[in-house]
Amino acid sequence: MAAATESASSRNAVLDVEVPRGLKGVKVAQTEIGNVRGAEGFFHYRQYDATELAKLRTLEDIWVLMHEGELPADQAASDAFRARAGALRVAAFEQVSQLVPGLLAGADLSRVDVLATLRALIAAVGAREGWKPWLDLSSDEIKDQCSRAVALTAVGVAAIYRVKHGREMVAPDATLPHATDYLRMVTGELPSADKAAALEKYLDLTVDHGFNASTFTARVVASTGADVSSAVVAAIGSLSGPLHGGAPSRALAMVDEIGTKENAEPFIRAMFARGERLMGFGHPVYTTMDPRSVMLGGIADTLGGDQIELARHVEQTSLDLLEEVKPGRGLKTNVEFYAALVMRSAGIPDELFTPTFAVSRVIGWTANIREQVENDNRIFRPSAEYVGPEAPQTVPTI
Amino acid sequence: MAAATESASSRNAVLDVEVPRGLKGVKVAQTEIGNVRGAEGFFHYRQYDATELAKLRTLEDIWVLMHEGELPADQAASDAFRARAGALRVAAFEQVSQLVPGLLAGADLSRVDVLATLRALIAAVGAREGWKPWLDLSSDEIKDQCSRAVALTAVGVAAIYRVKHGREMVAPDATLPHATDYLRMVTGELPSADKAAALEKYLDLTVDHGFNASTFTARVVASTGADVSSAVVAAIGSLSGPLHGGAPSRALAMVDEIGTKENAEPFIRAMFARGERLMGFGHPVYTTMDPRSVMLGGIADTLGGDQIELARHVEQTSLDLLEEVKPGRGLKTNVEFYAALVMRSAGIPDELFTPTFAVSRVIGWTANIREQVENDNRIFRPSAEYVGPEAPQTVPTI
Repeated sequence: MAAATESASSRNAVLDVEVPRGLKGVKVAQTEIGNVRGAEGFFHYRQYDATELAKLRTLEDIWVLMHEGELPADQAASDAFRARAGALRVAAFEQVSQLVPGLLAGADLSRVDVLATLRALIAAVGAREGWKPWLDLSSDEIKDQCSRAVALTAVGVAAIYRVKHGREMVAPDATLPHATDYLRMVTGELPSADKAAALEKYLDLTVDHGFNASTFTARVVASTGADVSSAVVAAIGSLSGPLHGGAPSRALAMVDEIGTKENAEPFIRAMFARGERLMGFGHPVYTTMDPRSVMLGGIADTLGGDQIELARHVEQTSLDLLEEVKPGRGLKTNVEFYAALVMRSAGIPDELFTPTFAVSRVIGWTANIREQVENDNRIFRPSAEYVGPEAPQTVPTI
Repeated sequence: MAAATESASSRNAVLDVEVPRGLKGVKVAQTEIGNVRGAEGFFHYRQYDATELAKLRTLEDIWVLMHEGELPADQAASDAFRARAGALRVAAFEQVSQLVPGLLAGADLSRVDVLATLRALIAAVGAREGWKPWLDLSSDEIKDQCSRAVALTAVGVAAIYRVKHGREMVAPDATLPHATDYLRMVTGELPSADKAAALEKYLDLTVDHGFNASTFTARVVASTGADVSSAVVAAIGSLSGPLHGGAPSRALAMVDEIGTKENAEPFIRAMFARGERLMGFGHPVYTTMDPRSVMLGGIADTLGGDQIELARHVEQTSLDLLEEVKPGRGLKTNVEFYAALVMRSAGIPDELFTPTFAVSRVIGWTANIREQVENDNRIFRPSAEYVGPEAPQTVPTI
């Protein structure tokens, strides 16, 4: 419940406002970056339907749109930014290839976490170069740091993965599209056009999605005047949380465990009997179908293959049995399920599902950081309700 | 203004709540860790007056209080935890001495930022060891990671500072109090009892202070289920912001520039004439005197010396002239001014003012992380108000 009362103990007209837990439904800022209209099964980047953008434009075009507010106007502008993104990856690789081996030297590589290492990598770049608080920078300098953070993420994830597994790092190819080059740097091979397109559409669809926890984190940190790397590093931390972006492989793990079509129904019935929860179904925001799921499901079907057929069968069985057990709830498959399927089919190892999410979402984070700092910034400094023992009590001495 | 309305477009009873910008005065959670009663000039840790604790108990005792809810009951318990903190520093030094030289290798050391390097260091420890999301850990394991983060902060700041300046890292002495040992690891010399006590009281007074931006950041990141290092690293990022903890040396810089007592009045009058703002005066929460300022001012006076005499003179001149220029506003010296004075007098280099703030505040962050995750956690996922162009518009193709 929400209520507003004047604080009895405050003399400077601060309102004590009670809000829903987790700030659910609380509008903490104004934004022009995009919106999620859950009841309509619709989300948009700036003024465009995000799924239409994914169908019609490149990831680099969407990157420009998020940061500039407008798509590249023509092919020349689009090509120019694609070349710029390639140059940013090449520059990022200089730092990545210098830092990543050292970050992992002497570590038990089986324990190393790729996303957490990306967090350390970007933190280290900002620290070594002394990235200044945005309060001390021009708008162009802030934008430049944002672009570098996006490039460092794609190049960094690929390099960290390869070093972790004892393989040579792959240098960027500045002539390739960002998504294709990322996939190539991960696998070491130029991907097929189908796989590259599938991954690019996944990235297109996950650039931004309202004030999710990592985007909100980026804005809270930026609101203090901190530098861009601080905000991005913090957002990566939030993304690693299993309640946010940290568990997309769980849905596919169930499909793997089921193994065959015949096993799907008895397996899921047994889960229900044990009171276990199905991973990959239901979403807190979409009350209708998640538009990302619709599109990613279609992409998976296009890629085809035994694995996707099995996953689709498990999905349908899950939905049928959910309807049987919880009739009328209308639970739908969530994006996590299809995202994992598309990433795996495109050649992304399961271990990189969440780090690959960061490769696209960092475009949204940095757009949000820029909007936060360039649009009449105010520091996020909320209050809490003290509910502990009455204070002050006498401090005991010993 | 605060208002609560049912969203027309939502079918699942999400409230659209409008709140003050920056969430000012908005109670985003319940806490038993402490509170700031700004109108009374009072703040407390758990059930005790924070300034009383600083007078009567050690930093380690306060660390126990923040995490356990109770002070060590007797001398034996207090001594036991002091020894435990010493052992944690020794263990931290093993990792710090291995990682810090690598993090800074090949960097232009004059550009390296100490606090940002601390952020990279803790990120790297978590990444290399694969610290698990707290959702997958026991309460004792979470607490252990929190304790390690506190130790890594003190040991890390000192080591980074020394490596940056081309000096040998100083290993911890597990038999010393935490504050004394931190100062010793920074300067390389065992400090006098006066200086150690002054620094310890500064640390005592800055362990926690309501839902400031860094504490809130730590809780937002932890709310996603992310691991302890993610939350601490994010909080360090927020602390680096000049609007939060990132500019405590600015107040003293003015004193340095003024240089002599005689120069104070003409200097400050000239600033006012140029429309410049005095750093170190006024606080958004305290409408009366900040209790930290009162105590730190007293400690500075006890330490004495020319520098403190000059600072006190500049302070009084500033207050007199502020009252002349803005009569009735009753602006007071804020804690930043005295904190910088006490730290410098104790032997902390100006460059380490904000990193030293982290040495104490990490105790508060980790207490807040534990309360967030162990007390019916809910992910922070607010909303935003979309104010951009109407969507969807037709996506132009090229």
